[in-house]
Order: sequence, then C-alpha cells, then structure tokens
Amino acid sequence: MNAAYRTLLARFARIHTIAEAQAMLNWDAAVMMPPGGSAARGDQLAVLAGLAHELLVAPEIAALLDTAEAAGDGDEDGWGVANLALMRHAHRRATALPGDLVEAQARTNSACEKVWRNARAARDFATVAPHLDEVVRLAREAAQALGAALAMSPYDALMDGFQPGIGAADVAPIFATLEAFLGDALPRVEARQKPPHRPEGGFPEAHQEALCRRLAARVGLDFSHARLDRSLHPFCGGTQSDIRITTRYDEADFAQSLMGVLHESGHALYEQNLPRAYARQPVGQAAGMAVHESQSLLIEMQACRGDAFLTWLGPVLHQAFGGNPGTYAPENLARLWRRVARGLIRVDADELTYPAHVILRFRLEQALIAGDLAVADLPAAWRAEMERLLGIAPRDDAEGCLQDIHWYDGAFGYFPSYTLGAMAAAQLMAAARRDTPGLDAALGGGDFAPLRGWLARQVHGHGSRLGCNDLLRAATGKPLGAEDFLAHLGARYLV
Amino acid sequence: MNAAYRTLLARFARIHTIAEAQAMLNWDAAVMMPPGGSAARGDQLAVLAGLAHELLVAPEIAALLDTAEAAGDGDEDGWGVANLALMRHAHRRATALPGDLVEAQARTNSACEKVWRNARAARDFATVAPHLDEVVRLAREAAQALGAALAMSPYDALMDGFQPGIGAADVAPIFATLEAFLGDALPRVEARQKPPHRPEGGFPEAHQEALCRRLAARVGLDFSHARLDRSLHPFCGGTQSDIRITTRYDEADFAQSLMGVLHESGHALYEQNLPRAYARQPVGQAAGMAVHESQSLLIEMQACRGDAFLTWLGPVLHQAFGGNPGTYAPENLARLWRRVARGLIRVDADELTYPAHVILRFRLEQALIAGDLAVADLPAAWRAEMERLLGIAPRDDAEGCLQDIHWYDGAFGYFPSYTLGAMAAAQLMAAARRDTPGLDAALGGGDFAPLRGWLARQVHGHGSRLGCNDLLRAATGKPLGAEDFLAHLGARYLV
Repeated sequence: MNAAYRTLLARFARIHTIAEAQAMLNWDAAVMMPPGGSAARGDQLAVLAGLAHELLVAPEIAALLDTAEAAGDGDEDGWGVANLALMRHAHRRATALPGDLVEAQARTNSACEKVWRNARAARDFATVAPHLDEVVRLAREAAQALGAALAMSPYDALMDGFQPGIGAADVAPIFATLEAFLGDALPRVEARQKPPHRPEGGFPEAHQEALCRRLAARVGLDFSHARLDRSLHPFCGGTQSDIRITTRYDEADFAQSLMGVLHESGHALYEQNLPRAYARQPVGQAAGMAVHESQSLLIEMQACRGDAFLTWLGPVLHQAFGGNPGTYAPENLARLWRRVARGLIRVDADELTYPAHVILRFRLEQALIAGDLAVADLPAAWRAEMERLLGIAPRDDAEGCLQDIHWYDGAFGYFPSYTLGAMAAAQLMAAARRDTPGLDAALGGGDFAPLRGWLARQVHGHGSRLGCNDLLRAATGKPLGAEDFLAHLGARYLV
Repeated sequence: MNAAYRTLLARFARIHTIAEAQAMLNWDAAVMMPPGGSAARGDQLAVLAGLAHELLVAPEIAALLDTAEAAGDGDEDGWGVANLALMRHAHRRATALPGDLVEAQARTNSACEKVWRNARAARDFATVAPHLDEVVRLAREAAQALGAALAMSPYDALMDGFQPGIGAADVAPIFATLEAFLGDALPRVEARQKPPHRPEGGFPEAHQEALCRRLAARVGLDFSHARLDRSLHPFCGGTQSDIRITTRYDEADFAQSLMGVLHESGHALYEQNLPRAYARQPVGQAAGMAVHESQSLLIEMQACRGDAFLTWLGPVLHQAFGGNPGTYAPENLARLWRRVARGLIRVDADELTYPAHVILRFRLEQALIAGDLAVADLPAAWRAEMERLLGIAPRDDAEGCLQDIHWYDGAFGYFPSYTLGAMAAAQLMAAARRDTPGLDAALGGGDFAPLRGWLARQVHGHGSRLGCNDLLRAATGKPLGAEDFLAHLGARYLV
C-alpha cells in the first residue's frame, strides 16, 4: 500500500493504544477501584476518549483517507482494502456528530443513568422518565445525523455502532420466525421437562475459583496473557495480550460462577486469537457485538451445556465438591442447567425464552427512535409486549422497563446483538460439527482443541475483514438465519 | 487571574489527568498484570507520555504563559503566582530537550535496563558497561541542555527533575557533616548495641495483612480512597483520590511488611492531604521527591520506630501473633528494628548507615555527569568509596555498582533525595514536637491525629506552593540542614 495508508496505520495504532488504556481503566473501575476513586476515574476516561476522538477527526485523517483510497494499490490479500474501508467508516461515524451533541449526550446519559439506579431501587419510573425523555431525544438526533452520514435509517445507524452490516430489515423477519417457534415450543417444553436434583452445598469460593481457572484454561484461555477476578457484573475486558475476565461466586450454587467463566472465556478466546498482524488496526478487531456474543454463547451454551461436555464435567464436579454423585450425572446436570422458565428478568432468562426479552426490546426501541412511542407510554407498552410474548406481566416497572441499564445510558440498537449472537452460535456450531469429525467426542473428553482450531480458522483469525454475513457465509455457507438455532432448540428441548 | 491563566488551568488539568491514567497503568503493571501484557503496556504508557508531552510543548502554551505572566494580577493568596511559575518551569523543562534526544534516551535507557537485569544476576558489569556508557553520554547531553534552559549546572538540572530548589551546593556541605558524624558514631553504636530476641514465627500472611491494614488506617489512610496490595517492590502509587500502596510478606518475619506499609502510608498521607482546590495543577502536587521521602520516613522512622509508638505497638503485635510476650516488649522491638550493621546493599541498610550509601552515589554520579569518571572505572571507584565510608568492600559488582536500577534506567540526581528526606523528616518531627504538646503521648496511645494535623497544616496542605527550603523555613524556622537529623541519631543510638 501507499505512504498515506502507512501513515494511517500509525495514526490508528495510536488511537487503538489509547483505547487499550481505557479498557484497563474500565476493568480497574469494575474490579479494583475503591469507591472514592470513581469521580477521578470518570475524568480520566473522558480525557482519554476526548484525545482519541481528536486524533480520529483531525483534518489530516480525511486527507490521508482520500489519498489512500485514490491510490489503493498493491493489496494482494484484501486485508489492506478492508482496513482502509473500516478506517473510513470509523472516521465517518466520528465526524457525523457535532461536538455539542456528543457533549450533551455524555452529560445527559450519565445523569440519567445515575437517576435510573435510584429509580430502579425505588421501583419508580416517573422520577427517571423526564431524563429518559431527554436521552431519547438526543439519541434520535444522533441517529438522524449518523443515518445521513452513513446512508442508513436512523435506527440502523445505531445498530451499526454495535454490529456493523446487520440492520432492522435483516432482523425483523428472523425475530418473527423465532417468535412463532417460541409460541409453539414453550408450552411443550414446560410440559415435558423434569425437575432436577440440586447438588448439596456449600461450595466454598476458593474451590469454585480453582475449578473456574482450570476450566477456563481447558477452554483455551492462556493465563500468561489473562487474569480471572471478581466483579458485581461478570465481563470480559482488557486487551488482546492481557485479557481480564471476571465472575461472581455464590457459595450456595456454583453454576453461576462456572457458566459465567465459560461464557467470558468464549469472549476471551476470540480476543486472544484475533490476527496479531493487524493488532491495533480496525481490521484486527472483533467483527461486532453479535459475533462477539456468538463466541461466548458457542462456548457456554452450545459446547459446555451440551451432552458431550456434561459427560466429562460431571465427574470433575463431583471430585471438586463431593456429595451425591447422582446429582452430577450428565442427565441431571442437563435438567439443572437447561431448565426453562418464563420470567420477567432478561439476565436470568434461559436459552429458550431469552429471545422473547430481546424481541420485546427490539420493537420498543425501534418505536422510541422512530418517534412512534412516547417515553410516558413505555411502561404500558412493555407490559403489553411481555404478556403477548411470554404470557406474564411485571408487578412493577423494576420487573419491567426499569430492569436494564442500556436505554438509560443512551444505548439503543444493542439489544438485538444478544439473540443474533445466539443464532450465530448455533449456526457456527452446526458448521463446526459438519467440518470436524470427532468434535463432540473431543468435548466429551474435555478437549476443546478441535473446536478452538475451527473457530480460530473460521472466525477469530478473520478479525473484521469480513462483515457479519460474509463471515457466516464463508464459515457456514449461508448468511445469518434462525434455522440452525431453531434446530438446536428443537433437538435440545423437544426430542 | 486572567483569561490566559484560566485557559492554562484547563490545559494543565488535562495533562495531569493523563498522568493519573499513567499512574494507574503503572500500578497495574507492578501489581496485577500477567507477564504477557508487558509489551503492550509499554506501548500504552509511551503513547500517553507522548500525548502529555505534546500538550505541554504545544505552541499556544508558550503564548498563554507569556500573556498570563504579563497580566499577573489579582492573585491575593499567592497560589496562582506559584502555580503559574511552576507551569513555566514545567514548560521550560519539557521544551529544553530536542525530540530526538528524548527518544534516544527512552530507547537507550530501556535497552540498558533490560541488559542490567541479566548483568546483575550474572554479576557481570562488563556486559552492561557499553550500554551504561551510552546512557551516561545521553544523560550528560540532556543535563547540559536542561542546565542551559534553567540557568543551572548540568547536575543541578538533573536534581531539579526530582527535588526542585535543592542543588549540589546545598547538599555537599550537609553530606560532609553527615560523613564526619558517621565516622565517629558508627563504631560507638556498634560497640554499645545489644542483640535482640527474635519473635517466634511463623506469621501467616493473612494475619500480617490484616495488621498492616489496621495500622495503615490508624496512621490515617482512608481505605474508601485507597488499596493495599502486594508487589515485588513496595511502592505508593495511584492518585490523590485513589491511592495504591503495596508491600510484600515474609511469613518468617513480619517486620518487612509492617514497616513497609507504615513507610508507604506516610507517602500516601501526603498525597491524600494535598490541597484539593489545586488538584491536577502543578501547585497542588507534592513539593518534590525529598519532601515526599520525608513524609514516609517521618511516619516509619521517626514516629513508628520511636519509643512511644513501640510501647503501644508491642501488645498489638503480641495479640496478633502470640508467642513470648518478652519479644514484643518495646525495648526488644527497639533493638530489633533499630539494629545497626555495615552492609553493602543500600535497600537493606539501617537508618544510621543509609546516608553512607547515598553519599557514595551522590559523589560518583556527579563525577559521571561532569565527565570526571569513566563508566569503565566505576567498579573500582565504587569499591574505594565503600571502603572509605563504611570500611567494607563488595565481593563483586552485584554487591557494588550493579545493585541499583537508577543509573541503568537513566536516573541521575535522584539518590540525594533519600537522605535529604531523612534529614527533613527529623527536622519536621523536631518542630512538630515543639509545636504540639502531647505528641509523643498520643503516639504512645497509637493516636496519629495530632501528628497528622500538624503535617497537614505545615506540609501537606501547601502542595508545592513553597519550595523545599521555604517549606522547611515556614514549618521549622530554618532551611534543610543536618542538625536535627544528627540530634535524632545521637538520641536514638548513642544515649
């Protein structure tokens, strides 16, 4: 590639290195920071965000992009072209929003999120409604500006910020299929599932943590480049060469920490195996939040809650915790960890009913951004959708539209990623099985190497060179769809 | 103050906020980071250092400083004038060095430090000598450029980077006095000191840590704004509202962790009590490394190894660890923790012989920077000085000129701060006693509030509004001198 492109490589590497510092400071804030450090940490993150933004919107960047695009020669493998396109896309997004709108959003979202914490605790939507109204107003304004710059609808422009290449028109029919399946399947699953026996506790934290470490390493996490810690909300953070996953421990139930660590290990594996030749370049990053979620769900839901792995895991658990061996039999673990129940809270939902929670949010947030739903009408709309989708109704808004932080923090267009990720996970797992004889036999021996190898080749190693659908086409032969997910749910819950 | 000054306030706050991010990343690197994160962390710190430097040397800063200095009105309490002078000083230092020299130093120092680690382990000065030669050459070049910009001698310009306001001409006569005292006192102390009884171990880490936390809190550390962790080399890092101190634990001897935590708590107390109205401004920072060291040594050496506090501490230790109560009697703790022994290693030295180690380094580094001592002649010069000062000689260079990281990392002019700090600690403690009736009685009850209050008023609350000598004049009635330190040593070791 040409000199302008080489200069861009250095500029984007610098911007990404600032993002690495931000990632470490965010990890510290969630895991280590004493409460009194919070205000200063906010300032530190804001200054770094401001510096990164200034570097990205600097006038030379536009000129360099023009020159590099015009020259665009000598890229034999396509990585450079893809990287340049992603640079242009990032620049377009960063320059689309006027500075005073960005500032107003930062201030308004942060204030609303603080009020929301109290409103949720007090189960009182009215106190936060005026704040959310302002958040929605600014989000609509931003969505319109972004949509104009990217030639997309406003809502798609918001989705693009989380999962580029997938818009509402892709999602809507898939979610309609899913909803129809769920209406039919849920009563049948409820009728046929058998109650599990709970393993007898307690399960000391130290034993749980040792087991979590052992399983994360078995999945493929390299602890010379990673840490496992505790936090209120489990997450995967840090950087490619220094990944930080967290979990939380309940001494009465080890499933939460264990499944949490397996989930975050899936995210971590993706980060760890991104193409090092393009580290700190846009093309070297993950291909979006839905693809990222597919990697965590593939490890947790597809592999680790699957029959083969549970066969291996049972004796390991019995050795770690003792007690009645029958409770660790794979059939019982399956009943325990695949139990389906209609519930009001998204983060507690099982694999089968989770999509209902996402479909609800997808529809309501589209209506909010389109201006078809007023914030004042949100609680009633939530209740109506929940009754329609799962046949249950929240007793108050803490069980309804106050439960998630996302909207109150200004994040619209993120929710679909959870269920798109679940579908992509099923689709990728089906393809991995087709391509890899002995995949399940290996998982049944606690061996993730064949699965990891397939994922590295088909997903991780591509960075974001391919968009979500092209990535899935190359790996599975078709774009993102509900087919394999429904087949998976059918095989797991209805056979 | 005027508009230019107000703009400078915002610029310097931004620069300091970047420094806060660097402080947290440095803490993480020493305490949390897995080994594989080290290369990326180096890049993150380098990018942040580069951004902070660019902000400081930006052409507008020079213009704003000129305008603000010319306007310089309406500063009734002197803080603004002092802050502006410190801004100018920081700008002068940052612009004095050509960019290619800064880069060459960063590269050369980092390479030399890596070679030094192996050379020290192999006790082989020859392999690192050519690297150190280059480090010294660049340090001399930098010292000359800084000296020209600051109207100081080259070595003073290096000292100024650590403790502004104190030069070699201040230090040399004080160190000569100290050396004479030591030559006379050391044999007398050795002849009269009695052997201690060692408390019977072991001392479980968890018990030591709980005790360390309790004592740090008693000294005044506020754990809603602080953490205590473990690291190979104990330090105090973090930021004013989020202080991070570390220690290390030896289950055979609790003195190391305990005294380490008390030492770092002294540093932490200073940071915690710096004037919040000038947070993130140059005038709101500590008044230099010697003053900083005075605060740690005042807590550890003056207060906590003093008779009064040991009287309180003895029973606390016995309660924590059990065993023979006689070993926790204050007289025995004094013998144990004030034992004097000629040794070759600075970091293991006692309070009395420590200055000899610093005097040696002060003389040799002056000669290196002046060009009067060649790197090749360093081992022999070291041996000669050590024999002259303490009458002992290193068996090899690992016990001699390879023991400290400082020079190999390019830090010249730092060493005097250790002993200047010890002297300032004695001088401040003497003044605190004069000003505060009942100070020792309070320490004898484990109560640091009177001492802490005096330090907050006389030292911490001034930030760097006053230079080192003006600070000491205001607090103690005289500039930095050896008198009170010698009186302290005499009273503690020769009475």
